[in-house]
Amino acid sequence: MKHNSSSNHYAVIMAGGVGSRFWPVSRTAKPKQFIDIAGTGMSLIQATYERFKNIVPEQNIYILTNEKYKDLVAEQLKGIQEYQILCEPVMRNTAPCIAYACHKISELNPNASIVVAPSDHLILNPTQFGADVSKALQTAEANSCLITLGIQPSRPDTGYGYIRFNNEELGEGFKKVAQFTEKPDKERAQAFIESGDYLWNAGIFIWSAAAILKAFEAQLPEMNELFLQGRHVYNTEGEPAFLKENYPACENISIDYGIMEKAQNVYVLPVEFGWSDLGTWASLYSLSGKDENQNVVIPSSGTILNQTSRCMINIPEGKKLIVSGLQDYIIAESNDTLMIIPRDSEQEVKQIVADVKSKFGEQYA
Amino acid sequence: MKHNSSSNHYAVIMAGGVGSRFWPVSRTAKPKQFIDIAGTGMSLIQATYERFKNIVPEQNIYILTNEKYKDLVAEQLKGIQEYQILCEPVMRNTAPCIAYACHKISELNPNASIVVAPSDHLILNPTQFGADVSKALQTAEANSCLITLGIQPSRPDTGYGYIRFNNEELGEGFKKVAQFTEKPDKERAQAFIESGDYLWNAGIFIWSAAAILKAFEAQLPEMNELFLQGRHVYNTEGEPAFLKENYPACENISIDYGIMEKAQNVYVLPVEFGWSDLGTWASLYSLSGKDENQNVVIPSSGTILNQTSRCMINIPEGKKLIVSGLQDYIIAESNDTLMIIPRDSEQEVKQIVADVKSKFGEQYA
Repeated sequence: MKHNSSSNHYAVIMAGGVGSRFWPVSRTAKPKQFIDIAGTGMSLIQATYERFKNIVPEQNIYILTNEKYKDLVAEQLKGIQEYQILCEPVMRNTAPCIAYACHKISELNPNASIVVAPSDHLILNPTQFGADVSKALQTAEANSCLITLGIQPSRPDTGYGYIRFNNEELGEGFKKVAQFTEKPDKERAQAFIESGDYLWNAGIFIWSAAAILKAFEAQLPEMNELFLQGRHVYNTEGEPAFLKENYPACENISIDYGIMEKAQNVYVLPVEFGWSDLGTWASLYSLSGKDENQNVVIPSSGTILNQTSRCMINIPEGKKLIVSGLQDYIIAESNDTLMIIPRDSEQEVKQIVADVKSKFGEQYA
Repeated sequence: MKHNSSSNHYAVIMAGGVGSRFWPVSRTAKPKQFIDIAGTGMSLIQATYERFKNIVPEQNIYILTNEKYKDLVAEQLKGIQEYQILCEPVMRNTAPCIAYACHKISELNPNASIVVAPSDHLILNPTQFGADVSKALQTAEANSCLITLGIQPSRPDTGYGYIRFNNEELGEGFKKVAQFTEKPDKERAQAFIESGDYLWNAGIFIWSAAAILKAFEAQLPEMNELFLQGRHVYNTEGEPAFLKENYPACENISIDYGIMEKAQNVYVLPVEFGWSDLGTWASLYSLSGKDENQNVVIPSSGTILNQTSRCMINIPEGKKLIVSGLQDYIIAESNDTLMIIPRDSEQEVKQIVADVKSKFGEQYA
């Protein structure tokens, strides 16, 4: 193993989500991370993988996913090696899968610094992203702390977690985290924005292997003990059997709630690199390029729109669509399933998916 | 050849149309007659063929179509013999193809009586239709006249031809035709309805071979002469070559304009058998069964509609469709082409097809 600084840098991409908020384009069989939802020419996980290839050595990138998405990951990420794809035997939350990945990487390289990030976010400025993450990896190497990236908020969004920081600095812009607040109501969110002391929690974490394992030991000792038992089998043939036996026993808890909100040595780096978690059709609409009538059309080549404005259109490549006289609708199609709903009713998508499941069967959800 | 009455009865089904008014469900490659546009379980030409099998001997049914639809006809009409499919070498109007078919049948059987009908109309009461056509065939055998079926008009439609009859009767309800009027304006159509002397021209004609050939001789002598020249080759191997050489020389003229409007011996039988020419999405909408919100959904099994009413929906079998909050729209899909337009803009379909052709290419029109 080479021991220049970057060979100690690792990335863990979380790709086990089954989100249905972009249904019917995303669905259980092919969730959002595997889809080119924004029409960029790459699926979100492909774009995420490309971003990290510029930050850490490619062989140090791991994908955390679910057994059922293993083939999709291998298919979409050309050149990835089998050892880079880590499968949870059952779905838990983010704390168990991060504990597993960090224990495993620590066994490989106790000097590792690790960035953990979702696979299904959109980042418009990957160069800035790379600079911020690299800086955080170096800071995490030099300090026994947990780092999170904090997005400068642009609106009082009630769908995000907020991070309050105080005046204590680690240098180079890293600020001590005072408090995490999950999804505030509108009034509180507005007050957060006005105070200037709050950032959005993007779910992107950077830490040394030593620091995060110490945090697990302190905050989630049972879970830590469980993964400690596996230290002799990680990166050997025995790893899958160990996981299969022990992983289901893990508590279903998020890394935010289990570790970040309780640990005392958490720092945040305020960042601006054109981030979106692409949580809803509305978020995709708001950040996408629009035609002269404020329609977002993905892909743009197959449509004829007459007297149609402010629509969010996402159809399969090759499909032809003709629309007349429609305002403020979502038209989304995938896998022979077409949804036409008002843009302001996108919160109903979850209910629609439930209805579809009950009327047409699991395979359509 | 048997010489009971029915063996002299022949049917000619016209199936050469390329109508695009049900685009994208109908298109040049598969026009309306080959589609189950009303969701009955049979294409329109299949339903037409079945109707005539109950009226004339099956071997006496001929399909007049275009070379490019020959395979579609053979595929859809199980058990049809090759000799029953007559192909126009080039597209002309109805007069030439009727002249050809009637000359050919007359050579086979000079005592033939022939019903000529479109392949793409919907008839809800085939039993009544059979009774009316049989009566007309018998009347045509006994009288040297031309008979047309006249639909009792239900509204002042400006899209149809109207037939005025007078008090002169042939017996059994057949009335002498006084005048044909093509597509009147709204005011005239209203006056026609109120007078009670007008019927819609359904384009269904009944005559003896002798009577129609006499009418061609009188009204379209050049065309008649041309088809007379072929009398020694009809029903032989030489027929296709003769047609290929001579058919293109025919005048492009309709049977209505070329013969019916000029002949003096035309009678009309007023009929009511649930007829629609299915000329537009609106006509399909108006005659189809509706759900509790006045939506017409074909097929009905694949949709979930919320707060959606008075829509005309026609999607491929197996497709799933979810619609919220839409009123008075047409949603029609076929062959990977989806059209969403207000119901009252269906007159724009022709323009849409032209736009599609110019933007995406002939194959989509």
